[in-house]
Formats: sequence, C-alpha cells, structure tokens
Amino acid sequence: MSGNLGLVLRRLRDQGPRSRARLAAELGLTRSAVSALVGELEERGLVRAAGVERGHVGRPGTSVELDGHAVCGIGAEINVNHVSTIALDLGGNVIAEHRAGLDANKLAVEEVLDRLVALIARTEADVRSAGAETVGVAVGVAGLLDRTRDMLTVGPNLGWRDVPVGAELRGRLGAAYPVLVDNEGNLAAMAEALPGDPARQDVLVIFGEVGVGGGIVADGRLLRGRQGYAGEFGHMIVQPGGRRCGCGRVGCWETVVGLRALLDAAADPDDPVRDPALGLDDRLAEINRRADLGDTRTLAALDQVGGWVGIGAGILANAINPGAVVLSGYFAEVGERMRPAIEEQLTAGVLAPQAGGTRVELSTLGFTAAVRGGAALALEAVFDDPTLVGRRTEAVSEGVR
Amino acid sequence: MSGNLGLVLRRLRDQGPRSRARLAAELGLTRSAVSALVGELEERGLVRAAGVERGHVGRPGTSVELDGHAVCGIGAEINVNHVSTIALDLGGNVIAEHRAGLDANKLAVEEVLDRLVALIARTEADVRSAGAETVGVAVGVAGLLDRTRDMLTVGPNLGWRDVPVGAELRGRLGAAYPVLVDNEGNLAAMAEALPGDPARQDVLVIFGEVGVGGGIVADGRLLRGRQGYAGEFGHMIVQPGGRRCGCGRVGCWETVVGLRALLDAAADPDDPVRDPALGLDDRLAEINRRADLGDTRTLAALDQVGGWVGIGAGILANAINPGAVVLSGYFAEVGERMRPAIEEQLTAGVLAPQAGGTRVELSTLGFTAAVRGGAALALEAVFDDPTLVGRRTEAVSEGVR
Repeated sequence: MSGNLGLVLRRLRDQGPRSRARLAAELGLTRSAVSALVGELEERGLVRAAGVERGHVGRPGTSVELDGHAVCGIGAEINVNHVSTIALDLGGNVIAEHRAGLDANKLAVEEVLDRLVALIARTEADVRSAGAETVGVAVGVAGLLDRTRDMLTVGPNLGWRDVPVGAELRGRLGAAYPVLVDNEGNLAAMAEALPGDPARQDVLVIFGEVGVGGGIVADGRLLRGRQGYAGEFGHMIVQPGGRRCGCGRVGCWETVVGLRALLDAAADPDDPVRDPALGLDDRLAEINRRADLGDTRTLAALDQVGGWVGIGAGILANAINPGAVVLSGYFAEVGERMRPAIEEQLTAGVLAPQAGGTRVELSTLGFTAAVRGGAALALEAVFDDPTLVGRRTEAVSEGVR
Repeated sequence: MSGNLGLVLRRLRDQGPRSRARLAAELGLTRSAVSALVGELEERGLVRAAGVERGHVGRPGTSVELDGHAVCGIGAEINVNHVSTIALDLGGNVIAEHRAGLDANKLAVEEVLDRLVALIARTEADVRSAGAETVGVAVGVAGLLDRTRDMLTVGPNLGWRDVPVGAELRGRLGAAYPVLVDNEGNLAAMAEALPGDPARQDVLVIFGEVGVGGGIVADGRLLRGRQGYAGEFGHMIVQPGGRRCGCGRVGCWETVVGLRALLDAAADPDDPVRDPALGLDDRLAEINRRADLGDTRTLAALDQVGGWVGIGAGILANAINPGAVVLSGYFAEVGERMRPAIEEQLTAGVLAPQAGGTRVELSTLGFTAAVRGGAALALEAVFDDPTLVGRRTEAVSEGVR
C-alpha cells in the first residue's frame, strides 16, 4: 500500500495536479484503488482538491494536487565558516532559514555540533509555528563520510577525523525523526535534481572552491556508492606527472580546476584578487570585471581552467552520461566565461555524439545548495512511504494529550 | 499493492526463505497484509511454502520461498562473430541457451536480426516446454545506443549506424512482452550485480578486448544515464598527449589497457600471440604460460597494463565508490597477473581510505555475461511489478481456450 501511496504522491509532485481517472490511467491502477489512495493521502494532509480537469480520460473529474504545507524536511550544513539550516515543505517552499557564523578551526568539535543543534532546534520550532511536522534532518559536511560506519572519516578543512557526526547529533537532538549525515557535494547534487524535469534526473554537480568535489544523481536517486564516498571528483588523476595536490598525489583534477589554479593563472601573488582577507564574491566579481574589459591574462586563465573543467567533465560524462553537468561554487560565478572552453573539451572528449546530450549549466542556488539538497533528501522518505506522516486526526489528538 | 508485492518477492530472492511473521517485521507491514501479499504471489506461482522457521519473530511459522520456475527472462546478444541467447528463470537457473556463429560484417543488418529472432523463438519455445512464461527479452549490442530514440547510433565493430534495433526486433517478434535493447557492457554489469550481496549492489564492470567498455550498477540498479550512453570507460582521456585511439582522439584509456596495448608491450609483431587467426583464449593462455615461466617481458607488460587499469579504475572509484571493480573480457583471463599493479594504483589513486572499500574481482561469467545480464534485466520487471505474471488459473484457462 505505502508503495502505491508514494507513486501517487510523486506523480502529483512531478507532473502537477490531475484527476483520479488520469492518475489511474497513468499508474496502471484501478479507479477505486486510486480513490482509496487519494483518500488516505488527504487524511494525512498530503494532497487536496484542486480545480476540475477536462478532456483527458473519461468524464471531467476534480483534480487533486500536492498539499505541501503539512510536512517539512530540514537541511543543515557544517562548514568551516558557518553552520546553517533550511526547512522546505513538501512543495519545495522555504519555511525557515538560519545561518550562524563561526570558525570551526578554533572551536572544539562538541561546540560546533552544539551550535548546529541549537540552529536545528530553532528551525524545528519555526516549522511547528507554521503548523507543519518535521519528518527528517539531513546534514551536509565537507569531508569523507563512511556510510557503513556512520562516521566522518576525514574533514580536512574542518580539521576533523573519525567523528561520529550522526550519532552525536542524534544524541543531542533526541529527535523522533531520522537524522542523516552526508557529504555536502552529495546534498548539492540532490538539490540540482529537479522533480519533473527529465534532463535533471541524471545530474553531475561539480562544486569548486579551493577544493573540488561534487555529487551524482542517477535516475532521480543520489548515488552514494558502497561506503558513501562517491563524488570525490577533485582527486581524479587527470594529468599524470602534473602538479602536486594538497592530498599528496600528483595530477589531481583539483590542481588544474580549483580556485587556486585560476588565481595562479590570472594574477600575480600580490594581486588583491588573491587576498583571502577579501570576500570571495568580491574577488570573483573583480575577475569577471577584468574579463569584461578584455584583459587578456584573465581571459586566458578562464579559458585554460575551463578547458580542464571540460576534460574532467568529459571523463565523467563518458562514464555516467548525465543530462546536465551543473557547475556550482566558484564555477557558478565565473562559469559563463569558461563555458566555450568547457563545451569544446566536453564535446571532444565524449564518445557519444553531441556529448551524449549532456548540457553545461550553472547552479543558481549559491551557498544554499547543500542545505536545500539536505531538506529534499529528508523529504524523500515521505515520497517513499507517505504513511510516515500521521493522519491529521491522530496528529490533533496527540497534540491534545 | 504491486509495490509491496515486489518488496516481498525481492526480499525472498535476496535474503532467502522466511516466515510471514518475519517478512512483516522486516518490511514494516502488518501480518495480515503480508499474508494477503504472499497469497497473491502464490496464486501467480511466484512463491511457495518451504520449511518451518523458528525463533525469529513470534511463534514458529511456515516459511515461504521464491518459486522461480514459472517465469523466465531471455537475454540475447548481437556480436560481430555470433548471436546468442539464454533463458533464466526467476531463481536464476539456466532453462535454455543457444548460440549461432556468423560474420556480421558480411551480412546485411536484416539477416543478422532474422538470425537472432530465430534464436529467440527457439529459446522461447524451450521456456514454454519447461512450463514457464517469458516475461521479457533484453538484447545486448556492442555499440552506442541512444535510449531516448531507441536507436543504435554507432556499432563500430558491427559496422552499423542508426539502426532502430528495438523496433526491428519488436516488429519481427510480434511479442506480447517487452523487448529491450541495451549496450552489452551495461548488461554485463547487470549480470555481476548479485542479489543479496551488499558488496555487489554497487558494481563497476570493466570489459576489455580490442575495445574497452563496461557498465555501472548503483544501489542494485543499472545506471544508463540520460540517453543510455553510460559506461563508455574506454574513451576516458587518461593520458593527455598520449597515443592516438581508434576513435580519433588522443590518450583514451583504451590505448593503454586494450588488448592491443598488452600485445604491443608483450610481444614482437611476428609473435604468434599476436596472430588474430589463432583463438583469443589460446593466445591469452600462452601469455599466462610465459608469465608462469617468469618471462620478464611478459611480466613487465602485464604490470604496465595493470598499472593503467588501476589508474582508470581509481578515477572511476573516486567518482562512484563501487563495492567491486569486476574485470571482464580479456582482463578476466590475465587479471590475476595484473592484480598487484591494479590494486597498487587503485589504492594510491582513491582519496577515501583503503580505496573506499572497492575490491578488485575477476568475472567468472566469461562470454555469457551480457546475455545473463539481459535475462536478469528482463526479470527485473517482475520484481518491480509481480502482477505482470498472470494468476495460474488464468494461465490455465488461457491455455484451454
């Protein structure tokens, strides 16, 4: 039963409002089965009556649509400079958003986790105020997460090693809902996979700052791999015998496409665009300004790094044939300038004709990609099994108890 | 309903016989729901009573088990030297197997398709004789298949271009069941993903002969990508500025790990191991024999090619973190000799500790990998929706009509 409830709910999310008759035809179910399923989803506050639909299957019928307001997923992020959260309802609307600056390198692990827990608690209170229920939290962390041990193995920027982030957070939150922890690149990929868009069901997200990572969504599902380490694109060796990487190896993709590679090529050491004391946004804006002015060194640097982005994207596109390569992080800010070089190398590097249909796109989610993906991941549980959400009458009586 | 029927059926396949009570506990369903589901699966001939199970949940109960014999999937392959088929029942048993030699380069496309159709018809007749029903056919082809157009875009070895293989076969077969066409590397990957083995739910298969390809299974599901072009590993550029590839590009993985790269390194041009008139199995046996005798040139060649296999496998393992890299085709024959070099480069190349848990394994399926995977893929439809299989009473009355 829960399987078909989820089918109906996903269909309404991905394809929009439609009549029971049309749902029955599309899903290969009987009309009476669909009516029962819709009734149950209504009791749980997940769908509601919409307008009247004509002309598809049989007589005109009242449409039903997703009713997003009853449940929320919370996405959270632990970053070296901040902790942040977002709550999205089932319809994808932002219900709450919080961010607190900190310097993770100067704080104990416990202190960082406490601050994130405080933020999650505030977000959850906002969800309750909005009359909704929190169904899960997914937390993104920059680092290697072993999902078989539920452990952050290494978080190089945070300076963390072997931290059981999930267990620590679950202990502090004492929550009734699941608390997942995932690599932030994986969550960012989840955020870029758009329900209902066929070209965004197979997505490769490449995230770049000093480090380079990302994530893969295949057929609408996050690809984590055996132990959860998928998406470590920055350490693919693309230039044997090339530059030494921060990880100790030679020729990693990060050495030719990371922020440092761009800055090395674009500017002298004393150039203000290389001053970490200035905000990254401002420095990238300055690079775009120079490119607009036709500065040859800047243009050549963008072209060179873009070419390497395309070479690595081509390697990955031969392997997984995504509908879109979504550029995120600093790539999203300067990617329009890199696009010709990226597309040239991608097309040249992919065996399938026309790059196998892979498009190059720039993320528009900015620094909220990981938290948005976390919230989307938390909400996936409801689409897998809508019975996780209590019937409204139960919810009310529980409230009275 | 069909969703939960499939859940029960998969559980019995992956975890073995168990009682209704245990199924209910494991799947989070009520006992009465499980009894109804098992009853329906019994009517369709998909499960049957097994022994008595004690000590798990509640009172001892009669176990149920998968009953594989009622339905078969057929896998088929179009190769430059042969067409072949296999029929597997739901339990994975081989019910029929056929192979016909031909030279696809000397025959019209229509003739090759006709010969495959004749083989499929024979296989289907064998399935009927065994008292089973064919639920689908999946055909592997060596080449680029665009799944959005249902078209073989390029089959370089076959010499085919823009052939609508699926439509052609469906027209000839006039079959009531689905006929899928897929890249043979994808089907081989499906064959290596073993139900019930957690390490074989995320699998990367690397197939090598003159060309190099493969496929990815992620979380038990075949990864096809947006247009179906996933798994073209042979054309990842791993050595910029390296050797020219048959595809026209420079530095493709195929140029350093394909059969030709091994033979170039291991033998002079007039060496019989390079004589295509001799069988490949015999030539590879000779290479293994020389390695056993400690021939330094042979050992160095295996080491060199193995190192490149490991470098490419490391790139892919950073991206998708498979539980196993399964070496297939010629790699399976000489892979034990390459293993030290492969594992060294894989461990060095993967950012996650201990290569992220990725093991190197040799395929034991030989040349049947693609057809076996095709049959498994055809059977997946039954696990997704067991109601595809008619109730036995219906089947009988249809037989009488």
